[in-house]
Amino acid sequence: MKSKKSTDMHFKVKDMDIATGGIMIVILNKKDANKLDLKSGDRILVKNSQTEVTCIMDISESNKAVPEGRIGLFEEVLDKLKIKEGHIVQINFTGKPESIKHIRDKLYGKHLSYKELLHITDDITNDRLTDIEKTYFVAASFTQGLSNEEIVGLTRAMVQTGKKIKFPGLTLDKHCIGGVPGNRTTMVVIPIIAAAGFTIPKTSSRAITSPAGTADTMECLAKVEMSERKIKSVVKKTGACMVHGGSMNLAPADDKIIEVEHPLSIDAEGQLLASVMAKKSSVNANHILIDIPMGKSTKARTPKEAKHLKKMFEMIGKRLGMNVKVIVTDGSHPIGKGIGPLLEAEDVMAVLRNDPLAPQELRKKAITLAGILLEMTGKYRKGKGAEAAKEILESGKALKKMQQIIKEQGKQNKPSLGEFSYPVRSGKTGKIKEVDNEIIAKLARLAGAPSDKGSGLYLCKNVGDSVKKGEILFTIYAENNFKSELAKKFSKFNKGYLIG
Amino acid sequence: MKSKKSTDMHFKVKDMDIATGGIMIVILNKKDANKLDLKSGDRILVKNSQTEVTCIMDISESNKAVPEGRIGLFEEVLDKLKIKEGHIVQINFTGKPESIKHIRDKLYGKHLSYKELLHITDDITNDRLTDIEKTYFVAASFTQGLSNEEIVGLTRAMVQTGKKIKFPGLTLDKHCIGGVPGNRTTMVVIPIIAAAGFTIPKTSSRAITSPAGTADTMECLAKVEMSERKIKSVVKKTGACMVHGGSMNLAPADDKIIEVEHPLSIDAEGQLLASVMAKKSSVNANHILIDIPMGKSTKARTPKEAKHLKKMFEMIGKRLGMNVKVIVTDGSHPIGKGIGPLLEAEDVMAVLRNDPLAPQELRKKAITLAGILLEMTGKYRKGKGAEAAKEILESGKALKKMQQIIKEQGKQNKPSLGEFSYPVRSGKTGKIKEVDNEIIAKLARLAGAPSDKGSGLYLCKNVGDSVKKGEILFTIYAENNFKSELAKKFSKFNKGYLIG
Repeated sequence: MKSKKSTDMHFKVKDMDIATGGIMIVILNKKDANKLDLKSGDRILVKNSQTEVTCIMDISESNKAVPEGRIGLFEEVLDKLKIKEGHIVQINFTGKPESIKHIRDKLYGKHLSYKELLHITDDITNDRLTDIEKTYFVAASFTQGLSNEEIVGLTRAMVQTGKKIKFPGLTLDKHCIGGVPGNRTTMVVIPIIAAAGFTIPKTSSRAITSPAGTADTMECLAKVEMSERKIKSVVKKTGACMVHGGSMNLAPADDKIIEVEHPLSIDAEGQLLASVMAKKSSVNANHILIDIPMGKSTKARTPKEAKHLKKMFEMIGKRLGMNVKVIVTDGSHPIGKGIGPLLEAEDVMAVLRNDPLAPQELRKKAITLAGILLEMTGKYRKGKGAEAAKEILESGKALKKMQQIIKEQGKQNKPSLGEFSYPVRSGKTGKIKEVDNEIIAKLARLAGAPSDKGSGLYLCKNVGDSVKKGEILFTIYAENNFKSELAKKFSKFNKGYLIG
Repeated sequence: MKSKKSTDMHFKVKDMDIATGGIMIVILNKKDANKLDLKSGDRILVKNSQTEVTCIMDISESNKAVPEGRIGLFEEVLDKLKIKEGHIVQINFTGKPESIKHIRDKLYGKHLSYKELLHITDDITNDRLTDIEKTYFVAASFTQGLSNEEIVGLTRAMVQTGKKIKFPGLTLDKHCIGGVPGNRTTMVVIPIIAAAGFTIPKTSSRAITSPAGTADTMECLAKVEMSERKIKSVVKKTGACMVHGGSMNLAPADDKIIEVEHPLSIDAEGQLLASVMAKKSSVNANHILIDIPMGKSTKARTPKEAKHLKKMFEMIGKRLGMNVKVIVTDGSHPIGKGIGPLLEAEDVMAVLRNDPLAPQELRKKAITLAGILLEMTGKYRKGKGAEAAKEILESGKALKKMQQIIKEQGKQNKPSLGEFSYPVRSGKTGKIKEVDNEIIAKLARLAGAPSDKGSGLYLCKNVGDSVKKGEILFTIYAENNFKSELAKKFSKFNKGYLIG
């Protein structure tokens, strides 16, 4: 090293064939690392002619994993740089990003400016911050709180550092802040709105802590991962889409923040608000309906909390020039019968088919939401939206629209229902007073949802129903015995049903 | 998997030959991971007959890195399980540790009980928490604050989850909370105290954000990493030791917490207090002198902050039954001439040799501290300690004791001074009013300290000195050209000297 200049630091790529699920890792041989005085965990910049990426470096102790003069790249780095085994990359030292100073300031309670938030968001987007540093940002924002000004700033910064897609004319959108298993209204609302002739390009997330996200559920019926061009073509042809937002690079900082929120299931309000609104702003939505389910396991536990969230969403909407309407709904118990991707998709299709056995609460809620959206467009008179939505659903136009969307996105073969099933029965006779969202979600996840698409629960009874001792409350479906046993064991002590 | 039971999950070990610097990583083939429904980043338990370790799993995309039926282990995991390539390990699922609930509670501002803190500390000690989870604990403790009760509880929990070493009779100790470059008093105080016939087994840390820790500096003269048995033998023969605490497993949770504090240089007061006191309690010290340097770059910026820290240390000492004395010293500028491991070791030896060119401020401060410690034993009259310490130093007994300690720990060949040197000169004539600790530390680190032991700064001028334009303020020493250039460039704009 003594005689070498930094421009000499070229290394031949070795494909390590290891994926971390997101962290950018490279390996240097111990001798090279020593020459450059790099330690395990140090941050280096890896570049080819087109692009560069900040990576964390680990060390190969001998010549076995990575010999001298070579650099081992994990899959994420290879993908990002679009290079292969044998290519040449250059490495460079990189100090800590400046945005760490702003994160530190936030930990000390300082108010961050838009510029500072943009700086942090840009570094997150470009993987310049480690998990530890991102966690400090989330924890500081959570415990110190974000002011309205900061929340709007963070939203803008997230939009600014991501892709933006504009659709022509009026663009509608809906969002639910979650917490209620089976609450798959989106997949009913979207076809109704599109069938009414409006544009509603819906990007959804996959489940993080729940048994199914809209993207996981839709994926049982159609492809949800596609290029921007393809999405535009689907929307042009059908007026709608239901795709996974993650791959579209809309406000990508948001997804990277959520990754570090997940381990502790932190509900950082400011980040939740910015997250939702940034995604909507990135697709240039003009009219947005937000569903806030209220209940003890949701993000709005009390009317006061719900009212506060409503006010905040409206405030950000106003500041960003979007027409935002917020509806507070009953989030006290699961909606629908199926819990888990496939089982929820079946519920949705039953509602769209006007099947008399379809879950009526899901149907009613979807009609209400679609009605409000229709009224927001100004094309329907106040109080007439729900009626129009119902008509579209009952006429079969919504089902036809759904089939069209599925066809345009690319039909998928439905996964099969988990072959290991287990019925959970009531221990007593009475009326069902409560069904616990968290226990139902936990059981469905133990059974394998959302990654095992055919796993989950089918609820035979819900709040208000009467039940006899020995009657089936719900059935657990799992794709393998191990997970079936896990859920079964858990259900012995936790059914989640309060019967009075 | 469907027909297999969990007891069937045996894998043959592949040595991946990669070190992460602390994170426990294992790799499974994609097919095995799919069978077990494991995703990148999932936590699994890896076991052999003797021991088990919680690991983070990454995925091998093909058969190249890790074929089916095998498990790739990173160096840290191999070391911890004491196994090699070809051995068989068992894996098991592990849910999230329960202590995450307590961390979450702390984020929401809850007071944690000793039992809850012990739970967290135990999971940290046994690597059951990820960096993200640990970071939430640090951030929550920092922003929400720890009560006195919690700080004492955390201290006790750290001691409880680590090794304890007991030395016979009266055991003295000293500690400085840092922030002042060159402030290497420990290496003068310890030989004085031991020469006076007392037991003072000193465990020190390596530098984290500073250009040298006591362990880094001592390592220029003697071995600092050794077994507990060896340490006991050194202390028995000499009355003292100066070793690296890190390898001794005293309050190991503390070191693991510091790792995640480092990236943002967080000074979480509660954790600082618990950290210091847990190390002292682990070696069963009875009389402890704590040096709190006060200055704008230290942990006590104002007299109020210093007073508060002093009170806190005394409170914990009382609660844990230790005699703690706290002295607030001048931390406004660097002490000594050398900054960096070798250069600081030279200063220490010059003081011990009574060399007239030795830094007088370092000498005086060490005598003061040693004097207080002597008085704390009750064997010296109040006001007579410093005099006795000075006598021991001037008699050459302290030097002799130091040589004895070096010999017993194992003499090291001194590293050589960095061969790339660069003098930084004054731009004006005048009197030096301030020398900035942070800039001096930053320059020494840029030059390579502490990992390059012969790198750092030699200060020719300090606060109060007169200087002529063009005179050398300090010389930068580096072991390689790259780092020499880095420090040189930085010094063009930041000398850290205020000349009036």
